[in-house]
Amino acid sequence: MTHDPARIEIRARCGDARAGVLRVRGLEAPTPLFMPVGTLGAVKAMSPEEVWANGTRIVLGNTFHLLQRPGLEPLARLGGLHRFMGWDGAILTDSGGYQVFSLAERRTVEDDGVSFASPLDGSRIVLTPATVVAAQRAIGSDIAMVLDECPPAEAPREIVEAAVRRTTRWAERSLAEPRAPGQALFGIVQGALEIDLRRAHLETLAALPFDGLALGGFSVGDTPERRDGVLAAVAPRMPADRPRYLMGLGTPWDLFWAVRCGIDMFDCVLPTRNARNGQAFTAAGRVSIKQARYREDPRPLEDGCGCPACRRFSRAYLRHLYVCGEILAARALTAHNLWFFERWMAGLRAAIRDGTLDALAESARRATGPAG
Amino acid sequence: MTHDPARIEIRARCGDARAGVLRVRGLEAPTPLFMPVGTLGAVKAMSPEEVWANGTRIVLGNTFHLLQRPGLEPLARLGGLHRFMGWDGAILTDSGGYQVFSLAERRTVEDDGVSFASPLDGSRIVLTPATVVAAQRAIGSDIAMVLDECPPAEAPREIVEAAVRRTTRWAERSLAEPRAPGQALFGIVQGALEIDLRRAHLETLAALPFDGLALGGFSVGDTPERRDGVLAAVAPRMPADRPRYLMGLGTPWDLFWAVRCGIDMFDCVLPTRNARNGQAFTAAGRVSIKQARYREDPRPLEDGCGCPACRRFSRAYLRHLYVCGEILAARALTAHNLWFFERWMAGLRAAIRDGTLDALAESARRATGPAG
Repeated sequence: MTHDPARIEIRARCGDARAGVLRVRGLEAPTPLFMPVGTLGAVKAMSPEEVWANGTRIVLGNTFHLLQRPGLEPLARLGGLHRFMGWDGAILTDSGGYQVFSLAERRTVEDDGVSFASPLDGSRIVLTPATVVAAQRAIGSDIAMVLDECPPAEAPREIVEAAVRRTTRWAERSLAEPRAPGQALFGIVQGALEIDLRRAHLETLAALPFDGLALGGFSVGDTPERRDGVLAAVAPRMPADRPRYLMGLGTPWDLFWAVRCGIDMFDCVLPTRNARNGQAFTAAGRVSIKQARYREDPRPLEDGCGCPACRRFSRAYLRHLYVCGEILAARALTAHNLWFFERWMAGLRAAIRDGTLDALAESARRATGPAG
Repeated sequence: MTHDPARIEIRARCGDARAGVLRVRGLEAPTPLFMPVGTLGAVKAMSPEEVWANGTRIVLGNTFHLLQRPGLEPLARLGGLHRFMGWDGAILTDSGGYQVFSLAERRTVEDDGVSFASPLDGSRIVLTPATVVAAQRAIGSDIAMVLDECPPAEAPREIVEAAVRRTTRWAERSLAEPRAPGQALFGIVQGALEIDLRRAHLETLAALPFDGLALGGFSVGDTPERRDGVLAAVAPRMPADRPRYLMGLGTPWDLFWAVRCGIDMFDCVLPTRNARNGQAFTAAGRVSIKQARYREDPRPLEDGCGCPACRRFSRAYLRHLYVCGEILAARALTAHNLWFFERWMAGLRAAIRDGTLDALAESARRATGPAG
């Protein structure tokens, strides 16, 4: 079944913040929304049913990882990523740009694209704007991202300028490539922490017929403080009629702040990765479940939480599972964190509708820090 | 809430085989039944809801492991194992005897009990008939097992005789110890592969007021062929009015054969451990999911299987998850294997009622071997 490309409808505003619905793959996903990361075709430790039951309607897949395993041709022959992973919701795929610039070894950037040695087997992989769109066509995601060059925050201005220019050329080429039926394509704004470069790049990309725009290149060597300023200076200028996506962030504070600046969509490994490292997000801050203080703590991770873990398990049990290396520890903490993030976004949406978003700043700070 | 100790009601017979219900913890569990192993208070990779949804009504907990982690006093303070692990079904705990004799280092067996160095931290742990019953009282299991001495199959006859005598003395002492309200206590028949010793020990223990009897010490260095002969010579003589439990076995063949000999209850790590090693049980034999032949196989693990994995995932996807080290691989294969074992037992029960048990021999052999 083919759907129209993703479109956003804004229904409420609060300062620069906006709440509405993203229509994608025949679904209506309330925005602002958080997308859990399913790097290799699975949200780590979770089943598709659990992800859906959490309220999640869009998950992220990583093109960089999927093209190495299982490979694009097998994936296409098996009917695409939705069928492969048994996920009936929507999928956004990144372009691989971020991973190429942060993970890949022996990387060569040229005007045509970027080539690198696979971290898996050392084989040479070439990504160009065209191959990246083709990869996402094979994957069959609902929202595809353009290949971008993603310089670190501390890069000299000339490097950032060159990356912006190249990302623009790549963006234009990407738009010329055929996509899967109904597949949306988003452009990616770069510019590191240079506000003028970010604004100029945004203006350039906004003039192109992308279905949505993203801010890329954050959380690559920057600090929350510097990032917050750039977000406040750039995000409100993003096109109002298209989805606005902040890539790779973040903490409850990051989500609050970026929503306040007008962002609609987020993805981050934080709730899933931290869960596997024994960390649970709560309104009172991050709980590190391995601590001895929880050894006989009969309380759930968070009082009143309705997540599958809190409905059944004590901190004492979760600590025991974690210390023993039981898979159920990763499952339970991941389920809790995804629940927390989904409810955190629901709270931000409600506050936008109620015009009380700023009142959540203190809660955002508390949830982001360590539990007292 | 307190229940009567576990009792069995036999409703159908087929040769020596018997089908009925085990009443335990206010539940009726159809027999013969299989109990998944939840060593450390979790059936590995599974949630309690999933184990229940599988049809499982009794899980096994390992006293040897639980007394080291989380420890008996914390467990008792936290309300016992059912509450700790969030499991509303029944729990059978082993005595630790098997683990002491197969895992523990620097072991000393004396008439009072056995002492050993904890594999975790080297600390000295002493198990006596009394401490083992007390441990299971603290754990609060529904069915407790006596401490037994478990010699390997190849032990000289004098060693086996001594172990049998000691196990009898320990059994008598165990019966004198206070138990949790409604907690059943089962005796354990030893005797390695010596049929006359097994029969004599069975007769001795059958005269004692145990709520059920178990055959211990199998799969400790024996072979399926020798085991089958001993089972056929011993199991049919077990008391007809009490549950009969074969500890630590087995394969689909083992289950078939022992059911045929009159066994009612089983536990084994095979479905869960093999799942984590990438092995799935099917009617056509064991599937090793990592094999390259499954790389693009769109079929489920088993055609027509109603398990959560087969309803949604292809072999190609499961292979991908396994190769990538995704937790979902362990989850899906464990769910499938527990489903297979539960349905295998249901098939044996139905065949007993229909008087067609022997017709399953070929199926049992096929399911136990490698997939063609």
